[in-house]
Amino acid sequence: MQNIKLTLEYDGTNFVGWQVQPNGRSVQAELERSLQQILQIQCKTNAAGRTDSGVHARGQIANFLVPKSVDVVQLLKSLNGVLPDDIVVLGAEHVAEEFHSRYSAKGRRYVYSIVQKPTAVLRNFAWHVGYVLDTEKLEHCASAIQGEHDFQSFCKVEADVEHYRCVVQSSEWKFVDSRLEFDVTANRFLHGMVRALVGTMIDVGRGYTSIEEFQEILAAKDRREAGMAAPAKGLCLEQVFY
Amino acid sequence: MQNIKLTLEYDGTNFVGWQVQPNGRSVQAELERSLQQILQIQCKTNAAGRTDSGVHARGQIANFLVPKSVDVVQLLKSLNGVLPDDIVVLGAEHVAEEFHSRYSAKGRRYVYSIVQKPTAVLRNFAWHVGYVLDTEKLEHCASAIQGEHDFQSFCKVEADVEHYRCVVQSSEWKFVDSRLEFDVTANRFLHGMVRALVGTMIDVGRGYTSIEEFQEILAAKDRREAGMAAPAKGLCLEQVFY
Repeated sequence: MQNIKLTLEYDGTNFVGWQVQPNGRSVQAELERSLQQILQIQCKTNAAGRTDSGVHARGQIANFLVPKSVDVVQLLKSLNGVLPDDIVVLGAEHVAEEFHSRYSAKGRRYVYSIVQKPTAVLRNFAWHVGYVLDTEKLEHCASAIQGEHDFQSFCKVEADVEHYRCVVQSSEWKFVDSRLEFDVTANRFLHGMVRALVGTMIDVGRGYTSIEEFQEILAAKDRREAGMAAPAKGLCLEQVFY
Repeated sequence: MQNIKLTLEYDGTNFVGWQVQPNGRSVQAELERSLQQILQIQCKTNAAGRTDSGVHARGQIANFLVPKSVDVVQLLKSLNGVLPDDIVVLGAEHVAEEFHSRYSAKGRRYVYSIVQKPTAVLRNFAWHVGYVLDTEKLEHCASAIQGEHDFQSFCKVEADVEHYRCVVQSSEWKFVDSRLEFDVTANRFLHGMVRALVGTMIDVGRGYTSIEEFQEILAAKDRREAGMAAPAKGLCLEQVFY
């Protein structure tokens, strides 16, 4: 068995998300269809982060096992020839058989982009927030989540999660060109976590929620306490660490 | 008569260009339809640069005359409510009656974006050039066109152009994030000029054409001498100066 690791970039706008769904285009289905076309074998791929519909990736990692020898340089070229233009393979390499894109991951980095003025060019890649934002308060929230915390308040209710503790290694807001970006790295992320964090932090930044209330929401471990989830289109999976 | 100046951003991907065409969506037609819907009057708009199909704008300027009093703050909001989401109005203001977005313009700034790796997220906003590029040679070409020159070698053949002289005020290549950008400002641009310049400069950067040949092409005043036009999708009208 060969284990092959792929680094993927995609524009999530026209996908139902990473994962195969009964209806709609998924990144996984497009990738597996292309692999089958090239390798003439059905391959089952795993991804480091199962991005939701509308969420983008600049450094998604996927892997799959294949029972024959594969030239990864040729595979990369062939995949980019066959895949639709909203998915690009940035890298393909052989890895040890025990490597698993999700379970082996030690950390992930997401960036959430906000624009303060309406935009045509970035309309699928950033959330337009018209309110005046206090960036000091945003930075305070970003600092408050650093380290190990229980993030149940910022997680979609799910049956298969054993615990809600995540270690946030870095968390900051910064201005990049005309965008305001929330850049966060953690050992793991819960489902909907970055979007719930951003939605709640923006409530603080616009003065609707206080910094103290933000701390209370984090301590409450109850999703009903947090703000609305920020729209999917602003989110991008940037990097996965192993 | 009131004369109103609009600052526009648009994603040119799904347009036949600025100008109304018999077939296909144009920015001008969408804008004039929206103005008519809001003001209940047919308005004829002029743009500073008639961008081609696929070319974007972050600072296009358009103006129109209207025989009644218009609240520009309200107009801006109404337009953004009515326009399709690939056009955004960034500003609306009253200007003197003699102001004409094209004829009054003293300069324009365009940026052409290149990526060296394939990209999904930027696929409609940058040209993917896979060749290794010598950035020193690119910078040399950028310097060579500064000042006043006859750019007939870099212009689509057109009947209504009196002369081909343009004064290039600034011209440089720079790295911005993962992109290589050609940033150029001139008093005027000929039709297809930036794309022909970029296509020819890339030929120099990859070693297909020498710097001396680039100088000869500029001196030849013959479009057949220059390289292929770079694809429209990499080009963006950034700013217009008055």
